[in-house]
Amino acid sequence: MSGGRREDPGRGTLAETTRVEAFSDGVLAIGITLLVLDLHSPEERGQFLSGLVDQLPVYVAYLASFVYIGVIWVNHHQLFTRIDAVDSGLLWRNLVLLLTTSVLPFPTSVLGNAFQHGDRHDQQVALVFYALVAASMCLSWLLVYRHLSAHEWLLAAGTPASFFVRERRRSWVGLAANAICVLVALWQPVAGLFVAALLPVFYGLTNAGLGSSARRSGGG
Amino acid sequence: MSGGRREDPGRGTLAETTRVEAFSDGVLAIGITLLVLDLHSPEERGQFLSGLVDQLPVYVAYLASFVYIGVIWVNHHQLFTRIDAVDSGLLWRNLVLLLTTSVLPFPTSVLGNAFQHGDRHDQQVALVFYALVAASMCLSWLLVYRHLSAHEWLLAAGTPASFFVRERRRSWVGLAANAICVLVALWQPVAGLFVAALLPVFYGLTNAGLGSSARRSGGG
Amino acid sequence: MSGGRREDPGRGTLAETTRVEAFSDGVLAIGITLLVLDLHSPEERGQFLSGLVDQLPVYVAYLASFVYIGVIWVNHHQLFTRIDAVDSGLLWRNLVLLLTTSVLPFPTSVLGNAFQHGDRHDQQVALVFYALVAASMCLSWLLVYRHLSAHEWLLAAGTPASFFVRERRRSWVGLAANAICVLVALWQPVAGLFVAALLPVFYGLTNAGLGSSARRSGGG
Amino acid sequence: MSGGRREDPGRGTLAETTRVEAFSDGVLAIGITLLVLDLHSPEERGQFLSGLVDQLPVYVAYLASFVYIGVIWVNHHQLFTRIDAVDSGLLWRNLVLLLTTSVLPFPTSVLGNAFQHGDRHDQQVALVFYALVAASMCLSWLLVYRHLSAHEWLLAAGTPASFFVRERRRSWVGLAANAICVLVALWQPVAGLFVAALLPVFYGLTNAGLGSSARRSGGG
Repeated sequence: MSGGRREDPGRGTLAETTRVEAFSDGVLAIGITLLVLDLHSPEERGQFLSGLVDQLPVYVAYLASFVYIGVIWVNHHQLFTRIDAVDSGLLWRNLVLLLTTSVLPFPTSVLGNAFQHGDRHDQQVALVFYALVAASMCLSWLLVYRHLSAHEWLLAAGTPASFFVRERRRSWVGLAANAICVLVALWQPVAGLFVAALLPVFYGLTNAGLGSSARRSGGG
Repeated sequence: MSGGRREDPGRGTLAETTRVEAFSDGVLAIGITLLVLDLHSPEERGQFLSGLVDQLPVYVAYLASFVYIGVIWVNHHQLFTRIDAVDSGLLWRNLVLLLTTSVLPFPTSVLGNAFQHGDRHDQQVALVFYALVAASMCLSWLLVYRHLSAHEWLLAAGTPASFFVRERRRSWVGLAANAICVLVALWQPVAGLFVAALLPVFYGLTNAGLGSSARRSGGG
Repeated sequence: MSGGRREDPGRGTLAETTRVEAFSDGVLAIGITLLVLDLHSPEERGQFLSGLVDQLPVYVAYLASFVYIGVIWVNHHQLFTRIDAVDSGLLWRNLVLLLTTSVLPFPTSVLGNAFQHGDRHDQQVALVFYALVAASMCLSWLLVYRHLSAHEWLLAAGTPASFFVRERRRSWVGLAANAICVLVALWQPVAGLFVAALLPVFYGLTNAGLGSSARRSGGG
Repeated sequence: MSGGRREDPGRGTLAETTRVEAFSDGVLAIGITLLVLDLHSPEERGQFLSGLVDQLPVYVAYLASFVYIGVIWVNHHQLFTRIDAVDSGLLWRNLVLLLTTSVLPFPTSVLGNAFQHGDRHDQQVALVFYALVAASMCLSWLLVYRHLSAHEWLLAAGTPASFFVRERRRSWVGLAANAICVLVALWQPVAGLFVAALLPVFYGLTNAGLGSSARRSGGG
């Protein structure tokens, strides 16, 4: 939120920043909550315990995607503390970012299903599909960062150039990690699931450090 | 958001504008995110790849509707930077607009299903249905614009008359485009799907230009 | 939103008012949007047209509930322009109000199903059930109004006593109307559906008048 | 909301507090509203009345979870009136809290299903599962309180130490109560359902008292 420009005469600009955040928060909050709709209650009499235990891969996929969207929200949130104005280009790139994130419940569901009901080939298909969507998320972040670098007037005063260098590097690392995830999946699907589930945790950990330093420099 | 009137004594008015935006953002954010619930994971062992590939028309319908709601959100957002007060008439017309938009996941689902499971006649039915809902969205925008033109005191100072002329023209073009989409669909359903999927992109492109000029005049 | 008390030292109070509105807006926006999940696409090859037409009662139920939640949102919104502070009692009564509203997609689904698949008795059951939930919504409004009348310090200065007299009368009229709806349903279910669908429209119309007068006195 | 720090130069900090609340409100509002998706309309001709009556345990589970999320929202809301800044640690603990809450529709569905379709063993499994999730909610609150106690600079000035003592005690009581619920369930499932359904009501009642005193001291 562009708190420091509250009294700015450019009213359209302020409104845009606030509403883009509100809309993005809404989409991310809904996406993260809709994930639960893929957890289905057992219905067969006498089989509730096994019905719950058999869904273990579904839970892993659920947790991975929950952490993913959570991390993306934190990222998005921290990025917008550095943005003072929104132009059309940023608006559309932000929509692409929301698209790649809000579609995540679908590959999550495919992933859980493949490891619960599918064969080895199905699991590989599901992991490649999940990695593709995760990679498209990374790409959409790169689109946003590139646009901001080329339109510096959108940024809050005092945003260090190193911010974007570091964030872009994280996106490239994410792309590489998803490529590795695909390779691992082709070799051994269960190991691929393990990599896919750890990826968002890695994102979260690298973000935490960044976040606290960003806060210190911004809020001090 | 009526930022410039923050200290305005008319407290009811201010509150209404802010909350109408918040509620509309909520409905649009939920609508755009619920679209994902129509993407279903394959469940048949060994058939995940074909199960995913066969849903291609479902993905097209998903993307078209995602762009539609995204464009509508951007439109809504830009319109409200020009509105300083909300009266009952605008409140109800806004609800009609939200109705036509939030029902979109239904014709989207019909469209995807028809091209995945239906015959030629089903596809035509689905395209006509989708075009009808899209046309009703255009009509609801016209209702909003007509009301605002007749109640100029609701508008922010300095809104050029040309804004509404251009926006209304876009709505009429949208109505005409949906009529064409129906004609194409009756001739060749696949071509109709193509037109239906490109329509929101066209909207987005014409909006982008408008948006950046609006921003320049509003925020400069 | 308690705009006039923005600089009030009682920070807890301000926050509560704003967040209660935000949470309520969220629940109502989600409830109104989730209604669409009960509109199901036909899936049988060659039967899409009849599949869509046969769902006519489902559409009627959808529209009625959409208008209901829309009207409730407008009511809620107008009420909170008159509220400056929220205490625990109001918080819990507001949650009851949100409960009765957010459960509405369930009786809506029952109503649509009964008129599409059920017999005369099923339709009567569905109408009585729908009327019971609608009546509980009216009751929850009465709870809110009674609490506010007994805790006048929660209200914005200058709220006329006539506001609550009129609003309470509307709630009682709503209760009576739902009782009539039940009687009509027991005599002739289709006529009962007609009454049930018109009720929210009646609410909307009586609100519109109230709303514009409230706005005039509040914003003038 | 950190109303008192609106003009604070630390813009990043302010934004974080506001957006964390907005995102949390969104997730909780969606979670509480998604519960309704587990209430399914009967579809068998002539059996609507019995179809509705047979779902009684589903309604009990729905109400219990609705009150749970409602109480958690009130708690969350009151807690954040006492928080002036958000660091990464609080951000992640808040995400854990949202995770344990937004997953609640799943054990709710399992609980309703077990008492409608399952045998005695299924009901015990469902109750233990529900109690585990409820206990994890209590634990996530403890994580939040512990972090805040260790990082007092995040708190609003004037927050009494007794606030956290009391809140932590409530979390421990909640943990103990869920353990008791499990024991009762192993003895007699129906009694366990009764305990599980009353627990959130107990939370609500103890919160109400706290809330009004917090309000008095904060808003006076």
